[in-house]
Amino acid sequence: MTSFIRNQWYVAAYADEVGHRLFSRTVCGEPVLLWRTEAGEVTAMSDRCVHRRFPLSQEPGHLDGDRVVCGYHGFTYGADGVCVSVPGQQRVPRTARLWSYPVVERDSFVWVWIGDRELADEKRIPRAPWLDGSGWTVVRGMEPLAARYGLLVDNLLDLSHETYLHGGYIGTPEVAGTPITTEVDEAAGIVRVSRHMDDAACPPFYAESTGIRGRITRWQDIEYHAPCLYLLHSRITPVGAPPPEPDGSDPHAFHVEVVYAITPETDGSTHDFWAVARDFALDDDKVTDFLRENNRTVVLQDVVALDVLEEALAAEPDGYQELSINIDTGGLAARRILARLREEGASRTGATAAPVREPAAR
Amino acid sequence: MTSFIRNQWYVAAYADEVGHRLFSRTVCGEPVLLWRTEAGEVTAMSDRCVHRRFPLSQEPGHLDGDRVVCGYHGFTYGADGVCVSVPGQQRVPRTARLWSYPVVERDSFVWVWIGDRELADEKRIPRAPWLDGSGWTVVRGMEPLAARYGLLVDNLLDLSHETYLHGGYIGTPEVAGTPITTEVDEAAGIVRVSRHMDDAACPPFYAESTGIRGRITRWQDIEYHAPCLYLLHSRITPVGAPPPEPDGSDPHAFHVEVVYAITPETDGSTHDFWAVARDFALDDDKVTDFLRENNRTVVLQDVVALDVLEEALAAEPDGYQELSINIDTGGLAARRILARLREEGASRTGATAAPVREPAAR
Amino acid sequence: MTSFIRNQWYVAAYADEVGHRLFSRTVCGEPVLLWRTEAGEVTAMSDRCVHRRFPLSQEPGHLDGDRVVCGYHGFTYGADGVCVSVPGQQRVPRTARLWSYPVVERDSFVWVWIGDRELADEKRIPRAPWLDGSGWTVVRGMEPLAARYGLLVDNLLDLSHETYLHGGYIGTPEVAGTPITTEVDEAAGIVRVSRHMDDAACPPFYAESTGIRGRITRWQDIEYHAPCLYLLHSRITPVGAPPPEPDGSDPHAFHVEVVYAITPETDGSTHDFWAVARDFALDDDKVTDFLRENNRTVVLQDVVALDVLEEALAAEPDGYQELSINIDTGGLAARRILARLREEGASRTGATAAPVREPAAR
Repeated sequence: MTSFIRNQWYVAAYADEVGHRLFSRTVCGEPVLLWRTEAGEVTAMSDRCVHRRFPLSQEPGHLDGDRVVCGYHGFTYGADGVCVSVPGQQRVPRTARLWSYPVVERDSFVWVWIGDRELADEKRIPRAPWLDGSGWTVVRGMEPLAARYGLLVDNLLDLSHETYLHGGYIGTPEVAGTPITTEVDEAAGIVRVSRHMDDAACPPFYAESTGIRGRITRWQDIEYHAPCLYLLHSRITPVGAPPPEPDGSDPHAFHVEVVYAITPETDGSTHDFWAVARDFALDDDKVTDFLRENNRTVVLQDVVALDVLEEALAAEPDGYQELSINIDTGGLAARRILARLREEGASRTGATAAPVREPAAR
Repeated sequence: MTSFIRNQWYVAAYADEVGHRLFSRTVCGEPVLLWRTEAGEVTAMSDRCVHRRFPLSQEPGHLDGDRVVCGYHGFTYGADGVCVSVPGQQRVPRTARLWSYPVVERDSFVWVWIGDRELADEKRIPRAPWLDGSGWTVVRGMEPLAARYGLLVDNLLDLSHETYLHGGYIGTPEVAGTPITTEVDEAAGIVRVSRHMDDAACPPFYAESTGIRGRITRWQDIEYHAPCLYLLHSRITPVGAPPPEPDGSDPHAFHVEVVYAITPETDGSTHDFWAVARDFALDDDKVTDFLRENNRTVVLQDVVALDVLEEALAAEPDGYQELSINIDTGGLAARRILARLREEGASRTGATAAPVREPAAR
Repeated sequence: MTSFIRNQWYVAAYADEVGHRLFSRTVCGEPVLLWRTEAGEVTAMSDRCVHRRFPLSQEPGHLDGDRVVCGYHGFTYGADGVCVSVPGQQRVPRTARLWSYPVVERDSFVWVWIGDRELADEKRIPRAPWLDGSGWTVVRGMEPLAARYGLLVDNLLDLSHETYLHGGYIGTPEVAGTPITTEVDEAAGIVRVSRHMDDAACPPFYAESTGIRGRITRWQDIEYHAPCLYLLHSRITPVGAPPPEPDGSDPHAFHVEVVYAITPETDGSTHDFWAVARDFALDDDKVTDFLRENNRTVVLQDVVALDVLEEALAAEPDGYQELSINIDTGGLAARRILARLREEGASRTGATAAPVREPAAR
């Protein structure tokens, strides 16, 4: 039994990770081969030859123009995954084709659809326009996490941990000390968690990047689109600055959009994509370098903690207990939604047939 | 299924390993957090936060006076394991308390009780008074063993292996060559194995430490208190020295008390605590250094052999056969007692309820 | 459940690996202790003491003349596996004997019989006389393979992979491009796969060793004796050279006999013995060195590829699909024969009893 949620879009890579060369990444337990055609289109197909399941990304496998050549026996595939040549005979079996994944390049991400192809609807991909929009400067990275993806969802939906795990970076006492409000859109699979700190210490993350020296008003508005995309709309102003305008704009505030894509790799590991977009000091390289280092440090603090937690949980007997309090409202809502999506993804499966290999059958 | 024996006292640490800082050690599969209060009392509680089971010993978790602060979300506990503070709200849930272990500091060891708390009776802790008594000088250590604890019990109850595995250190041909006598106190869970060598070579362990150059009379009297404490009362004299006095004292003999605490860590690993106390050359640092090095070498010879044996057994199909002979009488008795204690420990479980997490439920 | 095939001969070692010292190798999951008596006879017995299953090959275990002394408690065995001495008592239990394996030294290999001893018939050992016959010069080696043995059988029975995986060494486009003929002797458990290239590029392996600069006629005649021995009778001539004589001899051709012994170690690892015998340039050390390096490189290319493939398959859900084409005819026949032998080997088991431990029972 697996915990993967099928019939969903997942971020498989940053767009600039994928070029005209073979690139493999495992998403929800499925090895996905990503490459760009000579015309620049991203393609995604199973990274396993139909013949003996040799990984196509393994050397001496290679691209020959817009064809993938397997490094073991030379089975050759087009950009659509259809096999066009096999060794020792002219006839290519009709069923020789790779599973090909619906794929969309958007907001600097490459999204792939894991599930039944006819259900793939790119309008359902949640947006993070700051990541390649004008008016924003972005730092980002991806860290491998040796923990089930649910631990990262828990982590990000309860920011009270900033005070303890990220003290001296992004946390201050007010984060853990301030109650949250939570809104859940069950149908859309969105969880919103907000925390408004009227008068709070300014953590180094913001003091160094904005130049504010005194205390701040700080808004944290989380918007989690289950299962993969997490947005934190963060806004700060010096205490006493004017409030937002009636039209919603707030020229006196500093805006930071923190984006995570939470992509399960295996049952016990996760691709932890993170990005920080800001609307100030856009061309200041010192601020850019500082935020990249500071946020990467924060992400790695989470990685260390969640790797330890995964080991602890993996060693627990079944049915271990947790105790939840108010701060967990958002995380518990997310777990509920993920459980429902998992069930829906599983039940819809079986209705479709894949040409060569049906990942749905797992 | 696990092989741990519940409702027993186990050595978790040497007393001087535990100070006013967080120290974690796994005993019978349970992660135990050990620390000393500012007043110097040893406390033992579960090393897992009740909230999301984060290890309390993991940085940046720390002690704040006599309170443990979890490094993930700041849940805070007193020395009794009761939670006194949680983030984001004033009210602390009534059930927020850590499993707290009965703990006793004695004979230089910290003993913890694994099982139902109401059954913990410190009078049942077996004694090794030599380890911090006057008139004795002690060397000691603890080696991690990548083998099930039963292999160390087997090893220590059959000292014929000294001749082969520890030749040139503590073994001579007479050890394997001399028959043993065995006495079993089933009710008390004690196995006694004795071997009396009238006229034996003196191994380097004793020659170097006592200065005896000729042959010796050598007594090995084992007293194993299942499951955790192993005592070897060792006595040597030069051949021809007067026998013990009628009152039991024997001023002409050199006495060495070898003590092992055999504490299961996981199903396949063990904490191998070892100590050697002597009643001669008490202030001779050269003898102290020699015995520390010599005995540690002997312990590590066992560790290498048992690690290899564990690997061999783990690869065996179920139902593999062993062949036992006279020398195994003590070891077989120990296995029988351990099997009975395991059964008793398991059957008594379920009758009790632990506040937050019932390790008994595993 | 295991995939080992019982009641078969397997190559356990090269003859010159086995001397008058303890040497251990696992064959079909069974640890086999190999050593030569003072008279030079190879013996094979279980590498586990009957007492507590300590590996006899583990130090300080050793040979004492023609007796094996266990390093743990000194149990001592003769060359026939019968125990002749135990510690602490004169009487040696009647059942104290090691499983002893039928063993044959032949064609530079040490063959052991895995299965019921009374079925061992050394006439069933397939031959590779080139490996120690006159008129041949041999290079050889053994590489550990972290893959199930079936992957190496697949690999060797379909040489079309030479074109892709071994291009620049032993492969040219004609190998993958030329159809094969396959003959199966189901009763004898032999698969023959032949490929005849009339006019082919000469790969470096042959160009460097024979000095031929132009194109060649190339014969590949595979003869696989399931489960363990693989022979590739390889023959090349310059294009246009006279054909073989009516009597079968072909003095104008260069002959290379490639031999593999495919010995399962565990379910997921294999001993990959390889040898290359040639009938030309017999005393030319440069050719010998070149062929040793070149062929070892080719073997290691296979090892890397099959290790990767094993990892990929081990992560697959059950029931994954493969697609087979004409080139797979020989490999599929081999799989069929191996499946039948496995079934026969399993069903015949249970009929016999081994003195102390019945490996058949696994």
